Amino acid sequence: MIAERIRVSAFPWVPEFARGQVRDLRVRWALEEAGLPYETYLIDHREKDGDTYLHHQPFGQVPMMLMDDDHSMFESGAIVLKIGESHEALLPRDERRRDKTLSWLFASLNSVEPSIMQLAEIDFFVEDEMVKSRHRPTVLKATERRLECLENALGDDDYLVGDFTIADLMMSSVLRILAHTDILANRPQLSAYVERCTDRPAFQRALKDQLQTFDDHASGK
Amino acid sequence: MIAERIRVSAFPWVPEFARGQVRDLRVRWALEEAGLPYETYLIDHREKDGDTYLHHQPFGQVPMMLMDDDHSMFESGAIVLKIGESHEALLPRDERRRDKTLSWLFASLNSVEPSIMQLAEIDFFVEDEMVKSRHRPTVLKATERRLECLENALGDDDYLVGDFTIADLMMSSVLRILAHTDILANRPQLSAYVERCTDRPAFQRALKDQLQTFDDHASGK
Repeated sequence: MIAERIRVSAFPWVPEFARGQVRDLRVRWALEEAGLPYETYLIDHREKDGDTYLHHQPFGQVPMMLMDDDHSMFESGAIVLKIGESHEALLPRDERRRDKTLSWLFASLNSVEPSIMQLAEIDFFVEDEMVKSRHRPTVLKATERRLECLENALGDDDYLVGDFTIADLMMSSVLRILAHTDILANRPQLSAYVERCTDRPAFQRALKDQLQTFDDHASGK
Repeated sequence: MIAERIRVSAFPWVPEFARGQVRDLRVRWALEEAGLPYETYLIDHREKDGDTYLHHQPFGQVPMMLMDDDHSMFESGAIVLKIGESHEALLPRDERRRDKTLSWLFASLNSVEPSIMQLAEIDFFVEDEMVKSRHRPTVLKATERRLECLENALGDDDYLVGDFTIADLMMSSVLRILAHTDILANRPQLSAYVERCTDRPAFQRALKDQLQTFDDHASGK
């Protein structure tokens, strides 16, 4: 039991490339896996930098989870860990398995996501063609190196630590950022892994709900 | 009590720019704060990509913490969290303070470190002068934006969540990556914060021990 009432911050609307990628999806997914109902706390692009929101989320990012007016958490990694601690299937209580799950949770966010995000930033935000063409290969190489390590570690297993845990939730969420590239297509083991994770009904519900929020607030409505 | 015998992986030697920056320092620091004795598990640059090491650290990185031959953790964030859980002063047990500490721990690694590391990579590894001159300003701007948010959140407080915790250990470790720039010099509040954290005897012992290992293995010895 995390709280009587759980609210998760989310944007009412984002541009096409960010649909299905905003990080409240990770928290929605974990809450769905744990069977915990929640409400969204919609925050528009002006409010996110206002004092009220920054009090709960110092970087003006989504997501933030509100448990009561004075009790909140920020960072999808921290929130997903919190949810995992309330639901044993998501975070094993056995010490060795828990330690391994936490290792992979942090690895997804600190060893895999940074180069993947650099690649996405170059592809979506960098406008300087010179930087794109001359820097992207370096970033791509670093990304591929990490993916190769991940692929070797996963081997023929379905999940990183036995059954599905928050480590897989986070790692597959991170790998999904590559959806606009053909990088995973060349790594069938990792593609199958992402598919295995995102085929879960909890992910499908979370994704549907995030997209529904955007549809409900599409311009003109 | 984490284990009878704790071993932390470390490099015997690194080039000048990496001295005092390799991430075993974060784990050494946490162990010193918790008063837990440890040994180093030295791993050279060839061994780190061998099967034995990759079994414990799938990305061939330092640090890895070995609790027994079959029980290890990787990722400095996960290991520091583990140590924090064994030492209340480093990670408060009070739920709200624990939640806030975890939020900041993840923020340091996933919201602050990535752009700081991008900057360090450009400064230390990118050789293409065109990329350096045309991409660095973008990365610098992103870094400054995060630092401004951090500065506002810290305000006049000494630490992020009451007394010194693993959140400060990690955040100050991340900010130290900027030592080769004048970025922090222009933010006296954050400079004072880093100094306050790294003035701690536990940090000083950890740093001395990391540097001593490098000195002991300097070429020619």
